[in-house]
Amino acid sequence: MAVYTEVSDADLAAFLETYDIGGVRALKGIAEGVENSNFLLHTDAGEFILTLYEKRVEASSLPFFLALLDHLAERGLNCPRPVRARSGASLGHLSGRPAAIVTFLDGVCRTRPSVGDCARIGEALAKLHRDAADFKGSRANALSLSAWPQLFAPLHFCADDVEPGLAAAIAAELAFLKTSWPRDLPRGIIHADLFPDNVLFLGEEVSGLIDFYFACTDDLAYDLAICLNAWCFEPDGGFSLAKGAALFEGYQSVRRLTPAEAAALPVLVRGAALRFVLTRLIDWLNVPAGALVHPKDPLEYVRKLRFHQSIGDAKQLGFRPE
Amino acid sequence: MAVYTEVSDADLAAFLETYDIGGVRALKGIAEGVENSNFLLHTDAGEFILTLYEKRVEASSLPFFLALLDHLAERGLNCPRPVRARSGASLGHLSGRPAAIVTFLDGVCRTRPSVGDCARIGEALAKLHRDAADFKGSRANALSLSAWPQLFAPLHFCADDVEPGLAAAIAAELAFLKTSWPRDLPRGIIHADLFPDNVLFLGEEVSGLIDFYFACTDDLAYDLAICLNAWCFEPDGGFSLAKGAALFEGYQSVRRLTPAEAAALPVLVRGAALRFVLTRLIDWLNVPAGALVHPKDPLEYVRKLRFHQSIGDAKQLGFRPE
Repeated sequence: MAVYTEVSDADLAAFLETYDIGGVRALKGIAEGVENSNFLLHTDAGEFILTLYEKRVEASSLPFFLALLDHLAERGLNCPRPVRARSGASLGHLSGRPAAIVTFLDGVCRTRPSVGDCARIGEALAKLHRDAADFKGSRANALSLSAWPQLFAPLHFCADDVEPGLAAAIAAELAFLKTSWPRDLPRGIIHADLFPDNVLFLGEEVSGLIDFYFACTDDLAYDLAICLNAWCFEPDGGFSLAKGAALFEGYQSVRRLTPAEAAALPVLVRGAALRFVLTRLIDWLNVPAGALVHPKDPLEYVRKLRFHQSIGDAKQLGFRPE
Repeated sequence: MAVYTEVSDADLAAFLETYDIGGVRALKGIAEGVENSNFLLHTDAGEFILTLYEKRVEASSLPFFLALLDHLAERGLNCPRPVRARSGASLGHLSGRPAAIVTFLDGVCRTRPSVGDCARIGEALAKLHRDAADFKGSRANALSLSAWPQLFAPLHFCADDVEPGLAAAIAAELAFLKTSWPRDLPRGIIHADLFPDNVLFLGEEVSGLIDFYFACTDDLAYDLAICLNAWCFEPDGGFSLAKGAALFEGYQSVRRLTPAEAAALPVLVRGAALRFVLTRLIDWLNVPAGALVHPKDPLEYVRKLRFHQSIGDAKQLGFRPE
């Protein structure tokens, strides 16, 4: 929900002169992307998304994100493709911010994903993992296991304001994850934030994966764990075995999980839940009273974490070993 | 800056089935319109703006606004044109809100209007007044002279928090306007909010007037006074005689001001300034501490009011009598 930086018509015209996509025909700030300012840009050459990168995004990672999108689009994945300026650069500067233009993708986010959607998401995620396999770039996951204790530190004394006992529950989970986290799983580029609002559908098909600004190098199965949490719980909070099974089936139609990955899943989904408990708590506790923008509920992910603490193996997530 | 209501893909699909514009291809919430939720909507038939009317807009006025747009578009004015559902209705319901689809207009808002832009705005405003002359609908101006004391009432004790002495200055101005406000000027439909962010330009031409949700029946010259305030002050706060002269010239190329209107202008611009001082003060004082959305500065309009209090006649606004 964000346009943090205004773009003057003169600045925009000068910026577009460094590209080969004609003059501006329309520019609308769009309510998408929490970290950046995004605009729908019409030029004589068609429709694009213009992104101004705000301070919360580390500028040193921008070349990684843009090169990754270039690589994936080249492989045929439906993702925004950076448009190069005449100089060949895909990263420029506009209104005092790093800025990029990417292609516009048709499609609409699912507000209530179906079992079939989950199968298609699994397939799309595996294709992303496959297509990124020969990508040369890498980026550490700034929000992985080693970062969680630091995220939790300032929450120690206020997490209980959100729910009594929450701080102790998080501390215990951190201790569990520290000793139980799997090692030596297959690694590669992961999206790390493939929630329903980052996937576009056109009819029944996935028409676009967007918002790669958490993409990083990490365990591939951890990406699947994030998707299980984001796509396979029902609005009433219950886990859908049918959706979980569909997600696994779609994923494995492209890339089979190793036995070690399957065995690690019950721990990975706990970590994937805790990661969003922590970041949502930070956002939740930092919102000024009465603000118009409501952050996402951290307790949704506390409930998901509790479900995962109650299960024994990946079969209870819908995984079916051969 | 607003998407207050989320639209589910299923609700949207059902809504579009009542129209003849094909299925949805993309939907993006846009950061436009303070009062409503606005979305850029792509369908098989092209691009549209979908608006969900939120509670702050009086539902009883929606048929007036949509009929006015229909009438103006029919006359050839560049404004959004309501798209009719198969039933013939241009107002429907979506996600629990009154909703309408209008045509999308190309163009970009001017962040730094030029003298030439002011001439074109004057001309566009006069065409709006001319084209609306035979429109059958009418709507009282809820933010006119008689409403200002009520707007000021809750501000009595807090206006001085914004600037010491401001409450007394507003009270004195209200008393002046009450005794000096002109009567029997030519009336008609006015836009009442034709600020630079409500005008689209394509190259040098005005390609669209948008956001008619303050449109009402009032003195035509009061609309010109609002535009003088919105378009003809420089960023440093000084009034530009050249821009004022251009605005008048553009306006009078289509519709000549009467002697009574010209004589009333110095009072009308004071009223037009005070109206925005009052509503901006309300927004300013109602913002929660630390909120992300910053309302517009009421003191900008206090300074404009002070300038108008210092002048003697319309010539000092750039008006040139024949």
